[in-house]
Amino acid sequence: MKVEQIMGGEVSRRGILKSAVTAAGVAALATGGFGLFSRAEAKGGPTEKWPWPYEKLDPEKTAELAYNEWYRVFCGNAVISSVFSQLREMVGEPYKSFPVDAFVFLEGGMVGWGTVCGSNAGANIVSNLIIGPRIAGPECENGAQIGADALQWYSETPLPSYTPKDPRVKIEIVKTTSESPLCHISVGKWMKKSGYAITSPERKDRCARVTASVAYHLVQDLNAWKDGTYKPKSTWKAVSNAGITAQQNCTECHGSNIPVPPSAKK
Amino acid sequence: MKVEQIMGGEVSRRGILKSAVTAAGVAALATGGFGLFSRAEAKGGPTEKWPWPYEKLDPEKTAELAYNEWYRVFCGNAVISSVFSQLREMVGEPYKSFPVDAFVFLEGGMVGWGTVCGSNAGANIVSNLIIGPRIAGPECENGAQIGADALQWYSETPLPSYTPKDPRVKIEIVKTTSESPLCHISVGKWMKKSGYAITSPERKDRCARVTASVAYHLVQDLNAWKDGTYKPKSTWKAVSNAGITAQQNCTECHGSNIPVPPSAKK
Repeated sequence: MKVEQIMGGEVSRRGILKSAVTAAGVAALATGGFGLFSRAEAKGGPTEKWPWPYEKLDPEKTAELAYNEWYRVFCGNAVISSVFSQLREMVGEPYKSFPVDAFVFLEGGMVGWGTVCGSNAGANIVSNLIIGPRIAGPECENGAQIGADALQWYSETPLPSYTPKDPRVKIEIVKTTSESPLCHISVGKWMKKSGYAITSPERKDRCARVTASVAYHLVQDLNAWKDGTYKPKSTWKAVSNAGITAQQNCTECHGSNIPVPPSAKK
Repeated sequence: MKVEQIMGGEVSRRGILKSAVTAAGVAALATGGFGLFSRAEAKGGPTEKWPWPYEKLDPEKTAELAYNEWYRVFCGNAVISSVFSQLREMVGEPYKSFPVDAFVFLEGGMVGWGTVCGSNAGANIVSNLIIGPRIAGPECENGAQIGADALQWYSETPLPSYTPKDPRVKIEIVKTTSESPLCHISVGKWMKKSGYAITSPERKDRCARVTASVAYHLVQDLNAWKDGTYKPKSTWKAVSNAGITAQQNCTECHGSNIPVPPSAKK
């Protein structure tokens, strides 16, 4: 159900809550991603030097790889594989030593529990592995930022946005906007609109195409970062904006009865 | 809000939906985790040979490490670090080459968006890295299974269940049962019951203790797996039980108005 339906009128999907803006919260805006906490030092294993060497990739080629890899390792793993399989060839280490295929479990929003869509988790893993975590220094904060951008883009975009050159299911796939980075919401809205069951070939191909779409968008951002032209797009800072870790569209789940989080430090 | 409150009476939290059990769904029960898809071959990078060598760890020592690591790298990364820092010493590779500190972004349910609690994501990453993904063969399916067990245990357990030997915040921390693996729900229920704000030292210490609790439980399962005595505990198979990737307590978010997913292959 959309925000507009729940509220019985037009409601801005973003920026509903501006409460609980504390001094700490404002300060947190200066850091990438979640940004609630102070910066610390990374411990420094051999692959914990960031950024990793990156060569620009072709978004379309990456999307095609992701689409086909979905049928082998599914959403999250396919996003990682689509990028890293190319970088293993072009760059070598540390990509060769990263155990990409351990991440099948991201399927179905993590072993089927419908939490974060695996393709979003995969995009975050890729951007943070390549660019680094925010604790590694200011030059690494775009890892988390590109990950946050992926979550927001996914939530706002009619998906799947990418159509494979030779799709396995030869139909035009219905597009839906999830308004959420969660698998359950994204798949559920698509199933409702399309009428296809979770076990149908059409639903599977839809998810393979969504995975390809996320990989395409991710590589666009990574290429811009490599060029020095990347600009952060996500402006959502949950802790300072909403007083709790959250999406920005509270009414989507809470209706009009949005709980007010405790705001004082107490 | 609890299921009981929404429904105005006592409702079983599990097994509400038994619809949409298809032949494919029943067959999927035979595989670990999500289990919707057919098995495929892993591609075989140098660290993609499973299981990785594992030595039994002390759950209490691991929990203490996770608690303290939370203050450096936060929930998801701290779970991974608490296990892998020990195995780097005891075993060496491939743990030394795994870029643990890239996973700070799991904080706050993934860059603050409140999706899956980072400690759950971290537990799944650890179990799947050590034991392997289900596509690597039947002997690797316990990787996803222990991950699923972590999600269910987290949802059902009053947390934090582990109290550090020397906690940074010297109070008894209120315990809450999230009924969900999601950060937003888990943190929100705790904030509501305790009255502490997201930015409070008490909330931070609560999350550090939850992280320690998850690490403790994870190592218990990994040790049992090493001993050959591990028994799967999670019985939730979303696709066959509910016809969609999902948690098992539909009423928690949907109230009594639970959508019926399309069930035919069409």
